[in-house]
Amino acid sequence: MSQRETTTTVANQELLLVFDETVTRAGVDGWIRHLESAGTPTQLYRLGTSLILPVSDVDAIHTAGSDLPAPTRQVLRSSDAWLGRRELRPTGTQVCMGPTTIGDGSVAVIAGPCAVETPEQVMATAAVVAEHGAVGLRGGVFKPRTSPHSFQGLQWNGLELLVEARARTGLPIVTEVVEPEHVKRLAEVVDGIQIGARNMQNFALLTAVAQSGLPVVLKRSFGCTVEETLAAGEYLLLEGNDQVVLCERGIRTFEPSARFTLDLTAVALWKQRTHLPVMVDPSHSGGQPKLVEPLSLAAIAAGADALLIDVHVQPEQALCDGNQALRPHQFAGLMGRLARAAAGLGRHMSGGT
Amino acid sequence: MSQRETTTTVANQELLLVFDETVTRAGVDGWIRHLESAGTPTQLYRLGTSLILPVSDVDAIHTAGSDLPAPTRQVLRSSDAWLGRRELRPTGTQVCMGPTTIGDGSVAVIAGPCAVETPEQVMATAAVVAEHGAVGLRGGVFKPRTSPHSFQGLQWNGLELLVEARARTGLPIVTEVVEPEHVKRLAEVVDGIQIGARNMQNFALLTAVAQSGLPVVLKRSFGCTVEETLAAGEYLLLEGNDQVVLCERGIRTFEPSARFTLDLTAVALWKQRTHLPVMVDPSHSGGQPKLVEPLSLAAIAAGADALLIDVHVQPEQALCDGNQALRPHQFAGLMGRLARAAAGLGRHMSGGT
Amino acid sequence: MSQRETTTTVANQELLLVFDETVTRAGVDGWIRHLESAGTPTQLYRLGTSLILPVSDVDAIHTAGSDLPAPTRQVLRSSDAWLGRRELRPTGTQVCMGPTTIGDGSVAVIAGPCAVETPEQVMATAAVVAEHGAVGLRGGVFKPRTSPHSFQGLQWNGLELLVEARARTGLPIVTEVVEPEHVKRLAEVVDGIQIGARNMQNFALLTAVAQSGLPVVLKRSFGCTVEETLAAGEYLLLEGNDQVVLCERGIRTFEPSARFTLDLTAVALWKQRTHLPVMVDPSHSGGQPKLVEPLSLAAIAAGADALLIDVHVQPEQALCDGNQALRPHQFAGLMGRLARAAAGLGRHMSGGT
Amino acid sequence: MSQRETTTTVANQELLLVFDETVTRAGVDGWIRHLESAGTPTQLYRLGTSLILPVSDVDAIHTAGSDLPAPTRQVLRSSDAWLGRRELRPTGTQVCMGPTTIGDGSVAVIAGPCAVETPEQVMATAAVVAEHGAVGLRGGVFKPRTSPHSFQGLQWNGLELLVEARARTGLPIVTEVVEPEHVKRLAEVVDGIQIGARNMQNFALLTAVAQSGLPVVLKRSFGCTVEETLAAGEYLLLEGNDQVVLCERGIRTFEPSARFTLDLTAVALWKQRTHLPVMVDPSHSGGQPKLVEPLSLAAIAAGADALLIDVHVQPEQALCDGNQALRPHQFAGLMGRLARAAAGLGRHMSGGT
Repeated sequence: MSQRETTTTVANQELLLVFDETVTRAGVDGWIRHLESAGTPTQLYRLGTSLILPVSDVDAIHTAGSDLPAPTRQVLRSSDAWLGRRELRPTGTQVCMGPTTIGDGSVAVIAGPCAVETPEQVMATAAVVAEHGAVGLRGGVFKPRTSPHSFQGLQWNGLELLVEARARTGLPIVTEVVEPEHVKRLAEVVDGIQIGARNMQNFALLTAVAQSGLPVVLKRSFGCTVEETLAAGEYLLLEGNDQVVLCERGIRTFEPSARFTLDLTAVALWKQRTHLPVMVDPSHSGGQPKLVEPLSLAAIAAGADALLIDVHVQPEQALCDGNQALRPHQFAGLMGRLARAAAGLGRHMSGGT
Repeated sequence: MSQRETTTTVANQELLLVFDETVTRAGVDGWIRHLESAGTPTQLYRLGTSLILPVSDVDAIHTAGSDLPAPTRQVLRSSDAWLGRRELRPTGTQVCMGPTTIGDGSVAVIAGPCAVETPEQVMATAAVVAEHGAVGLRGGVFKPRTSPHSFQGLQWNGLELLVEARARTGLPIVTEVVEPEHVKRLAEVVDGIQIGARNMQNFALLTAVAQSGLPVVLKRSFGCTVEETLAAGEYLLLEGNDQVVLCERGIRTFEPSARFTLDLTAVALWKQRTHLPVMVDPSHSGGQPKLVEPLSLAAIAAGADALLIDVHVQPEQALCDGNQALRPHQFAGLMGRLARAAAGLGRHMSGGT
Repeated sequence: MSQRETTTTVANQELLLVFDETVTRAGVDGWIRHLESAGTPTQLYRLGTSLILPVSDVDAIHTAGSDLPAPTRQVLRSSDAWLGRRELRPTGTQVCMGPTTIGDGSVAVIAGPCAVETPEQVMATAAVVAEHGAVGLRGGVFKPRTSPHSFQGLQWNGLELLVEARARTGLPIVTEVVEPEHVKRLAEVVDGIQIGARNMQNFALLTAVAQSGLPVVLKRSFGCTVEETLAAGEYLLLEGNDQVVLCERGIRTFEPSARFTLDLTAVALWKQRTHLPVMVDPSHSGGQPKLVEPLSLAAIAAGADALLIDVHVQPEQALCDGNQALRPHQFAGLMGRLARAAAGLGRHMSGGT
Repeated sequence: MSQRETTTTVANQELLLVFDETVTRAGVDGWIRHLESAGTPTQLYRLGTSLILPVSDVDAIHTAGSDLPAPTRQVLRSSDAWLGRRELRPTGTQVCMGPTTIGDGSVAVIAGPCAVETPEQVMATAAVVAEHGAVGLRGGVFKPRTSPHSFQGLQWNGLELLVEARARTGLPIVTEVVEPEHVKRLAEVVDGIQIGARNMQNFALLTAVAQSGLPVVLKRSFGCTVEETLAAGEYLLLEGNDQVVLCERGIRTFEPSARFTLDLTAVALWKQRTHLPVMVDPSHSGGQPKLVEPLSLAAIAAGADALLIDVHVQPEQALCDGNQALRPHQFAGLMGRLARAAAGLGRHMSGGT
């Protein structure tokens, strides 16, 4: 069910009453009736197992009867993207993709080829990343390419290869979606859906993906701000799906030495402003294998919960972005150094022993 | 029919044979058979009434029999977005929206409210812009908004208002599309479709819009380059639809004094690099009424074929971007100054006497 | 005399009393004594022939005796860079370089080689630009170069060539200064001094140049904002030198198709916000001869008072930025089209008949 | 002695012969004579205790007699800024400021107030940063401010306070220089000189500072690229001063949530491209105390050798940038977490036990 219809009203609300699952639904319904009778009708929102009531007239809170249950928290609505604000869930959101949890304090590495190309490539790469500690497999089957003349991905045929790789390695699989009408069929088989940077403000796609109920990796557009990314995440949260990971993958700047400029300030700001976990893609950002390790280490030091790493068993034969993929031995080395750095930061690798 | 399937082959072609309508289809088919027998099979592309054959093996051209018709032009393929290159159509493309032509050397002004809000607002604004020389009416009914809590447009109800305004003023109507599945229904009634900046790389949407056959206003993403915009246009051209206008509406930079930084260098570069006409939206770029006139004058001086101007009869009551709309008297003043400047540039206003 | 010492006080002032030359100095001194006795001592500033008194306590104005002369204007201090605000001089500032006036409504073209290289090059280029209507000659003798291994200019030897070119053509000469200790010697011979983009916030240089009393062309740094440029201009105005031209020459953005992105929104904003005249350098901005004409036309349409154009009689032999210079016939063509466009904008070419 | 005069020749050289101190000067002179007699005269450069000969004609190397000493290394000249390239000194440069070494693998923290304001502020802040492990004291006495109406620093009076603070704490002192004519007097007392972002391309200042022989902290301009910063460093190296630290402090982007966007990709690239040590200033970059810790951790994870941290005992009373300074307890917490993270990265804190 979409929560969108009444949003115009909500935009004027000023205080948010948050009820955790310890409060009964009957108690919350009592609040709704009280607010209606006080002349400030409201709309109920859901964030995981919490229920949220925006209240525009603060006086109505003070006149509530003592029979109404106390809200777990009262929070000032500080911006348009209020469902994602950290105040609503101070302990943070945990996103579960199959057996993998992102946002529990560990460092989760999702890895794989930028594009699914051949059975051999996918199976070999999946085996390598699983062996060295990745907890998720990412491979693109629908590729949004700048030019229509470029390789557009194996499409549905590629999806079968990902499913086979999951069966062999046990890793949950994540892939990008590019059209609303693909969502349903993808959602039947994958463990997580990625929305690419170019589609971050494709709101029809966001809504369709959120309604699938699957975990979502939402990549920041290279031309959009920290707050606009939170607002895009709000399109997902508003559908009642709180399984959302924000992913920084570099922004456009005047600097030509790397493909994009990785914005780790954004990572730090998101960790402070939102309860959603944060991922970083150092491969697309730097666009060079030599940049993946320093940017990965910097990303977890800045607070990132997860990393998304391009790995390819034969980068020189890749049909898409091969020049930025790590080779297997480079990935193995990275994982070792990440583990030691994580320890220095008081963290551990997801899936580690 | 999509021309997409064989593009991988085409990307390696080096020379383009262009056949204007003076060459018979039989002659072109002769070339296709010749190239196949010479071992370099190719694919036929269409650009308006021209047919284009990419040829990878230049020797095969020299061995062609004298019975084959000479190509109208031979052009080196200089980039991925080759269907849009000016060399293919040196005189430029003219795009026709109802009675209005964009790209014939005149200055065409499309105007109207950013969003369709009420019958009174649309009818009054349409009357004003028609009176002062606009040759198209633009009004948004589906509004892609950064926040899901913002006004999202009147949607299909708004479309009826635009149709009514067209009936009263005779102006062709243009509106933005945000979902592939809306394209068909919109295409039945409007004269032109706008693809917004946030959707410039929503390739599924581009393809659906192109296949409608309607004229398209393709807005440059505020985070994308001059060449990426040409590549997005290529997604449209590749479907056989050459009725494409590129629209510059400002890019993201570090400068905070205006909403966006209008990139008129892009306008000059597009006029040199592509045969497609170029539009400029000074309203969304500057975000302030006081900037609309200088930026409009500068845009046509830089070579823009058309302008897209926000006009509102009561900007202070607008539900969307009212703080950038011109009032009627400001629009009237602008049109007068544009006409005098156009004359100084050796041009005239579209629809002018 | 520097007006700098008491600026901390001034920063808190809220109202500016402007006295034009019709008010006697004795009258202004009366105001100073009145404000002191009212407990709000102030500091006198000069802007050309006007005198300005910042007043922090508005009540003190109302208690002024009727014997005090009325200020010509009262202006709210709206920003830190208040000496440059248009409200202080609504009719705009005219800057005089030798026989040339910038800011009188005309379009003034300053042209010449990016760098002075040889006697032949300078004399031939000067003759060409004079013949076709330029009203100033610009040539660099001290060249600030990104790399120390690049050609650094002919330095003092080059200056003599500029002087000789002035003698032959009658054009006033402008050149860039890069060190405070060069200012005095340069100021003895040139008609205007340019501060380059890389030195826009070299405040020691700004102060030294302002104190020379010469007209200054202050180029906007490619990494600085519209307001920061006004603040840099304030360093010049504060020394009592109002002969300042702001010059837009492109900013750094993510767009790689041109050397810089020309920001004509800045030109429009400056024309509204400051009384200083505005120049545009399309040569350094675009970095390509083919961009000079459209950007020049756009610049004057956006309101620029002057243009700075690279011209070289043999661009292929230039030691610096030759790939952006116009050839003589290109410059001639540009000047003709500028004249016609200026007429369409209700303006005329400086020096024209 | 400046090495600048013959640089035009050098720019065409293709191979660099590097002689470490194990090669006698007589041997190097032999090479110079050989190259002269072979018709490819060259110029001798110095990098610390190494001597470098650029050679344009590779054949001349092959014809060298066996009596000439073998170069320690032969390196291809890969860019304009070749004296700074890592290939010339693969083990990296160590910069010594008083007792502190930057670039030896440790993490060095330089801290202090943005501006020196009062004796109490400087002494208290110096004591705090020394107590918690800083190995250098930075305080600004000449402040380059965007507006001339802002506080410009205590100037020479402030310098005496820094000297006193050094006497009390033993910390070496670093301060910014803004005018070439100040260099000599500053160099007599401070341990290191900072060139601010606004002066990174103030080449006269760079040369004057380099010639002082003091260690230099060269801040990257917020509008300049990774390679332009290396080229600015080249102005310093060319004077025979290799005690240069490059400092990333954020660049200008479209993102408004922080003061600047910290570019840690630049840090990673510099560590790969140059032998110079790299510092990061998270205080000026983020502009908020809450961003200092995540950005500091990320900076050392990306490979930074040193950090520059704003600390103030009473930020709310600061005259300059107080809203970004850490309070003493925040600084103490940061230093503890830095030490643990450094251990996870296989490093240790400079000055630590």
